[in-house]
Amino acid sequence: MASIKPSVPKGTRDFSPAEMAKRNFIFDTIKSVFKKYGYQQIETPSMENLSTLTGKYGDEGDKLMFKILNSGDYLAKADAAALENRNSNKATASISEKALRYDLTVPFARYVVQHQNEITFPFKRFQVQPVWRADRPQKGRYREFFQCDADVVGSPSLLNEAEFVMIYDEALSKLGLQDFTIKINNRKILSGIAQVINKHDSIVDLTIAIDKLDKIGLNGVIKELLERGFNDADIEKLKPVILLDGSNTEKLASLRDALQTSPIGLQGCDEIQTVFDYLANCKLQSANLELDITLARGLNYYTGAIFEVKTNEVAMGSIGGGGRYDDLTGMFGLKGLTGAGISFGADRIYDVLEELNLFPQSTDQSTQVLIICFDTDGERYALPLLQNLRNSNINSEMYPAGAKVKKQMEYANNKNIPYTILVGSDEMQTGLLTFKNMQSGEQEKLTAEDILQKLK
Amino acid sequence: MASIKPSVPKGTRDFSPAEMAKRNFIFDTIKSVFKKYGYQQIETPSMENLSTLTGKYGDEGDKLMFKILNSGDYLAKADAAALENRNSNKATASISEKALRYDLTVPFARYVVQHQNEITFPFKRFQVQPVWRADRPQKGRYREFFQCDADVVGSPSLLNEAEFVMIYDEALSKLGLQDFTIKINNRKILSGIAQVINKHDSIVDLTIAIDKLDKIGLNGVIKELLERGFNDADIEKLKPVILLDGSNTEKLASLRDALQTSPIGLQGCDEIQTVFDYLANCKLQSANLELDITLARGLNYYTGAIFEVKTNEVAMGSIGGGGRYDDLTGMFGLKGLTGAGISFGADRIYDVLEELNLFPQSTDQSTQVLIICFDTDGERYALPLLQNLRNSNINSEMYPAGAKVKKQMEYANNKNIPYTILVGSDEMQTGLLTFKNMQSGEQEKLTAEDILQKLK
Repeated sequence: MASIKPSVPKGTRDFSPAEMAKRNFIFDTIKSVFKKYGYQQIETPSMENLSTLTGKYGDEGDKLMFKILNSGDYLAKADAAALENRNSNKATASISEKALRYDLTVPFARYVVQHQNEITFPFKRFQVQPVWRADRPQKGRYREFFQCDADVVGSPSLLNEAEFVMIYDEALSKLGLQDFTIKINNRKILSGIAQVINKHDSIVDLTIAIDKLDKIGLNGVIKELLERGFNDADIEKLKPVILLDGSNTEKLASLRDALQTSPIGLQGCDEIQTVFDYLANCKLQSANLELDITLARGLNYYTGAIFEVKTNEVAMGSIGGGGRYDDLTGMFGLKGLTGAGISFGADRIYDVLEELNLFPQSTDQSTQVLIICFDTDGERYALPLLQNLRNSNINSEMYPAGAKVKKQMEYANNKNIPYTILVGSDEMQTGLLTFKNMQSGEQEKLTAEDILQKLK
Repeated sequence: MASIKPSVPKGTRDFSPAEMAKRNFIFDTIKSVFKKYGYQQIETPSMENLSTLTGKYGDEGDKLMFKILNSGDYLAKADAAALENRNSNKATASISEKALRYDLTVPFARYVVQHQNEITFPFKRFQVQPVWRADRPQKGRYREFFQCDADVVGSPSLLNEAEFVMIYDEALSKLGLQDFTIKINNRKILSGIAQVINKHDSIVDLTIAIDKLDKIGLNGVIKELLERGFNDADIEKLKPVILLDGSNTEKLASLRDALQTSPIGLQGCDEIQTVFDYLANCKLQSANLELDITLARGLNYYTGAIFEVKTNEVAMGSIGGGGRYDDLTGMFGLKGLTGAGISFGADRIYDVLEELNLFPQSTDQSTQVLIICFDTDGERYALPLLQNLRNSNINSEMYPAGAKVKKQMEYANNKNIPYTILVGSDEMQTGLLTFKNMQSGEQEKLTAEDILQKLK
């Protein structure tokens, strides 16, 4: 047998007990907030038919999908010419008919279409599962990672968008973040701007340039816009948009002014206003809500609101994002169902909490108390206590007899167990057990009953 | 775009909100018991290197593993001769270097070896993750299914075995099962029986024949044993074993008698006795513990205790099993680490609970209350109440304005929401909202504050 030290595939990770405890803290917190807002969990298979996934993520996505080799004698049905010519791309379709999930959105759309007759709409679902991408692994980018999504399908109400803001605020506050910004934009505002200057394909160029205002100033932005093919008349019309400033209300007013000739642009302003109205009487705990017209993520599929979340406490990319897409299930032939959703970037949130030291100390404490025996007599003596502890729902362990006390203490320390109970011959004779607080080092002699009461 | 109704790959499943709630009930219950006994969660990647998995599950396992096609231009490095000859088996190694996890035990062994310097032994870990097998799908057998394992590595103490019995008893009782049998055997007893009759390769034949005693009687068993190559002298020696009966204590006494010439057999009896001693003062909640020497599962790898759990309430295969394997990590070059573990069969447990109607009614109640508004005025009016409910940690929803009340009521019913609050013009005028119990149909007029208090 090989005795080479085994390893995991590139870009994948093992999660130790300490890491799992922290990850569960994040996932459990987010899930509890999703549920509080009426979202329900579903799960879909790790593998989907290639016909479900292919073409949904662009050429790059098709390439980065992990394909599953057909079982059995797969070469019997392989495309002979493709094999002959070593045409990997072409051969794939003949030797693979399944791939690993690339995101949670396409499988969700597939789910909705497949189960449309069992679903009560609006359907509010959340999903926390791994996805796989054959990306080049690098710091913070993995080939297997968890996505954490909530989407509602079948409801055009902007109440959903307002609730997404509340969900972000509540979940991230619960995780301990104290200063973060939820940026909101609307695809229709971007369309309106393009309409006003009659340049429909230049939205991204425009937002990239405007986004640099802080760094390069108005003249810098104008220079860049001229380089990117905008003319002086465009720039004159765009000035109020470039210089957009002040409160969200002030920004909206300026935008309405700049977009007065664009019905779609004004509609975008109305939608943002409605979301703000819903939130008017709702005190956000830690989030700053900011209208940011340079926010252009997911431009290819979002049709209404666009969200992005950034922490202001450490330097880190976005820790969440989402938006509304008016035709979620159209790709599977079910037209006219509007969807809106958000996602939490769990890996980045993990790094943020780690850097800010925000994981509660209790996160990594699973076992509450370890019973340390000096010999098998002690083991037998302490078994009823162990059972009583467990009957009282106290996570507890007894180290199997035979090990040195020092080793057992180390075990408690390494496992972050806050209390130990020592059972030696003295203890058995007097019935007074040594109860030790592992952090302070303090110890006292107590009866089993007293220890039980104390730990309760 | 295709408008063919999409589907999931053969042998895989979507889980709806109702199904997820039930599955989570099972997993959460089992996990909480694992934790209570000091087990900690880990997770390993869905894919492992083929070098990690190949050869660990026999030829059949190698065949049933889902292999991942290499990314990029995989044919460039493919085995030309194997492609030419359409030798699928041989070609695989050259176009695939990863496969999906086939069980949780081999990845766990890999984990222990890889992380041996970070681990505190004895290492008690649990793991609840999906595994994949390209088996022919059939009722109750899936290509993607969850395993639910707890293993301890680095501790030879039989206290672990005793605790496994307690874990099964506590977890299955918590799930609502009232009558189930935990069968226990020991590989060394089986070896002892073989030693006594000097037939080391016939243990399986023997246990299969003995297992039929109830059905075919002593003469039937003897006839079958003769057919399977045992002789009269063997059978004379085996009689006490075949006719083993009575309490566990009585069975052990008979076994000691029959195995008196076999040191290994007697050692097996001692080990079982030690487990029983640990459990002597421990009142099991619902489990019957039964020494069953016909239990021969995992004969190829178990070296000590063997477990199997069966419910006596419905006809169903085993719902759990496990045992001790003395050289868990040897396959990865780390010798001398003993392991013992158990597994819960989550899919079968699901079917059992469903059949016995044991899922608590609350399992499928996620949202506690739905606010039903007649129009946008009501929506605005009720928003503060919605927030107050959520601030009090009550899962609550407001149906977006504009839908008929009947539709909103249906939504509440379909989502199994126990209470609704109706907000019409009367309600807004008087401040007395209609609070409806959806199950009884009862409704009363209450202030928002009273409703809040009631739901708390």
